[in-house]
Amino acid sequence: MIGWMQKLISPSLCSCIFKGTRKFSGVGKINHIAIAVPNLESATNLYKNVLGAKVSAAMPLPEHGVTTVFVELGDTKIELLHPLGDRSPISGFLGKNKSGGLHHICVEVENISDAVKALTDNGIRTLTEEPKIGAHGKPVMFCHPKDCDGVLLELEES
Amino acid sequence: MIGWMQKLISPSLCSCIFKGTRKFSGVGKINHIAIAVPNLESATNLYKNVLGAKVSAAMPLPEHGVTTVFVELGDTKIELLHPLGDRSPISGFLGKNKSGGLHHICVEVENISDAVKALTDNGIRTLTEEPKIGAHGKPVMFCHPKDCDGVLLELEES
Repeated sequence: MIGWMQKLISPSLCSCIFKGTRKFSGVGKINHIAIAVPNLESATNLYKNVLGAKVSAAMPLPEHGVTTVFVELGDTKIELLHPLGDRSPISGFLGKNKSGGLHHICVEVENISDAVKALTDNGIRTLTEEPKIGAHGKPVMFCHPKDCDGVLLELEES
Repeated sequence: MIGWMQKLISPSLCSCIFKGTRKFSGVGKINHIAIAVPNLESATNLYKNVLGAKVSAAMPLPEHGVTTVFVELGDTKIELLHPLGDRSPISGFLGKNKSGGLHHICVEVENISDAVKALTDNGIRTLTEEPKIGAHGKPVMFCHPKDCDGVLLELEES
């Protein structure tokens, strides 16, 4: 029965049906570009008062170890990240990059499981086994920078 | 005469008229995020075939010392940059970052001279004295990373 059906449908569709997974629909827009900053006030001043962008108030996210300011730029945003608490995930980065720097970029995907499968099927390692809930309350997964041209690439379910 | 006029118009408007410059209208969208990559083929494969984004053919830009692939993502794009020729501006970066990495971000401005004046008035240094014509054929200016939270920030006239 399966062999007969396989002759009628394409190999890729077969794979989706019989493995119980859908084909990854591809990435959407860039959700944000994250910049780790040593001084949140002066970084906010640059984007708000010097460059004239619309910026949010500072948002403390203690469960993620950062305080964030969102800078709206077209259909994406810059997120200025400053360490919050003793175990911030960006403290090590700022230890190595005293002036701050580009920390990661985040692209949107429709379904995080499909996206992660597409990545791992192609040998791209992820930093955790399973997606986690990110700073925006949605499932996210970070890909290994060594497999992404030195870029810490975050995928976020849109 | 000038004193009398100044009483009728706002101080900021005065400044614009009498200094002969317009007020900077603020940044627009992010034009691109540049990623320096050690292998253009594998980087293109990641974005095109694994992540399913729309990507351009490789574009050699010998006068800028790079070969570029454009990755369309929403209203902005990633530009994958690979060195071209002996004096590529990204060779040093790739020497320090063997896997590649986030190189710079570019935001659009309506008028490059107004934008540069707003920056220099606020103590932000630029990498050259005057704007140059960038890879897209438009005037661009790079700001000093030490004044921009460790980020190489490019302004491009839209």
